[in-house]
Amino acid sequence: MNFSSKRIEEAVNAFATLPGIGRKTALRLVLHLVKHPLENSEQFVEAILGMRRNIKTCRVCHNISDDDICSICTNPHRERSVICVVESLRDILAIEATGQYRGLYHVLGGIISPIEGIGPAELNIDSLLERLRDPEVREVVMAISPTIEGDTTIYYISKKLQGVNVQISAIARGVSFGGELEYADELTLGRSIAARAPYRLQDES
Amino acid sequence: MNFSSKRIEEAVNAFATLPGIGRKTALRLVLHLVKHPLENSEQFVEAILGMRRNIKTCRVCHNISDDDICSICTNPHRERSVICVVESLRDILAIEATGQYRGLYHVLGGIISPIEGIGPAELNIDSLLERLRDPEVREVVMAISPTIEGDTTIYYISKKLQGVNVQISAIARGVSFGGELEYADELTLGRSIAARAPYRLQDES
Repeated sequence: MNFSSKRIEEAVNAFATLPGIGRKTALRLVLHLVKHPLENSEQFVEAILGMRRNIKTCRVCHNISDDDICSICTNPHRERSVICVVESLRDILAIEATGQYRGLYHVLGGIISPIEGIGPAELNIDSLLERLRDPEVREVVMAISPTIEGDTTIYYISKKLQGVNVQISAIARGVSFGGELEYADELTLGRSIAARAPYRLQDES
Repeated sequence: MNFSSKRIEEAVNAFATLPGIGRKTALRLVLHLVKHPLENSEQFVEAILGMRRNIKTCRVCHNISDDDICSICTNPHRERSVICVVESLRDILAIEATGQYRGLYHVLGGIISPIEGIGPAELNIDSLLERLRDPEVREVVMAISPTIEGDTTIYYISKKLQGVNVQISAIARGVSFGGELEYADELTLGRSIAARAPYRLQDES
């Protein structure tokens, strides 16, 4: 695109550096800002700079945080005996949205991926081992994506945890709730059958 | 989404004010900025604020511009006898990308749309009439979308131009190049037949 304005071009290029935003979308965003009052753009920019300049990483769990220790780690109502190991903040948001988990988290900051050059040393594994010295912790839940890299990461961490007196568990894998069997992929369906569990009638329990 | 960080939430809300960006996309953009150095965010913000604070509207054609008069209006290589009337800057970019037009532009800033409360008074029509007083201008090309609102706008402007010694033309309408006839909509196909033009063999000309 040949913009008649250098300023517009610079702003479009700035937006286009963001993931998933091409130059056409970037232009739409820029024109949106142009159409609205200057104050809107200033507020937009302040929110972003304020966030970027002040954001911290939680000293305990490596979650993104406004303070040295994040609001989940400092929350007195969370169970301190369970630590859920996740790849990134996004997984925390997804799990929190379910409302099914009341324990703490530990953000690895990635998963082991030789192709992307991410080895165990790049991940927050040492600090996890450190946290497990606290005798209060009794369970580590691996909430890592069921991919080859994810499985490698779980395997590596489990090996490291050998000898540590803590229960290691992994989130359940199988066919999705509400999903049609015929549309499940072969690997998932195959493993679901292999990992079948005894069925209990509700009123039997 | 329940963010553990107020700062993150504010930045997500800021991005989510932009058109076509929901909260999930906004979060991805924010996490992208968090993952990259502070300088990247500062450059991003500078490009946007620099644009928004300094952007002007061309005094002649109402195109977006870095200066009082835009780079198309001041370009000595553009034909000054033709003015192409468009709805917005985006149409200028689209037409410029074709490389088929070397004249000037006039940005209306919208089209007549009673539903959206846009009447002729909201559009840059008076300044167009002003420009046509220049005897150098010999043709006005209406490059307005072929919708009911667009046609209304063309009709209104044409009425206004009665008595002005200038040729009014409209961009050609018909089936798209490379399009299959059977997929063309009825209105377009019907009008294409009604507005058929004499066919000339290339080597006859």
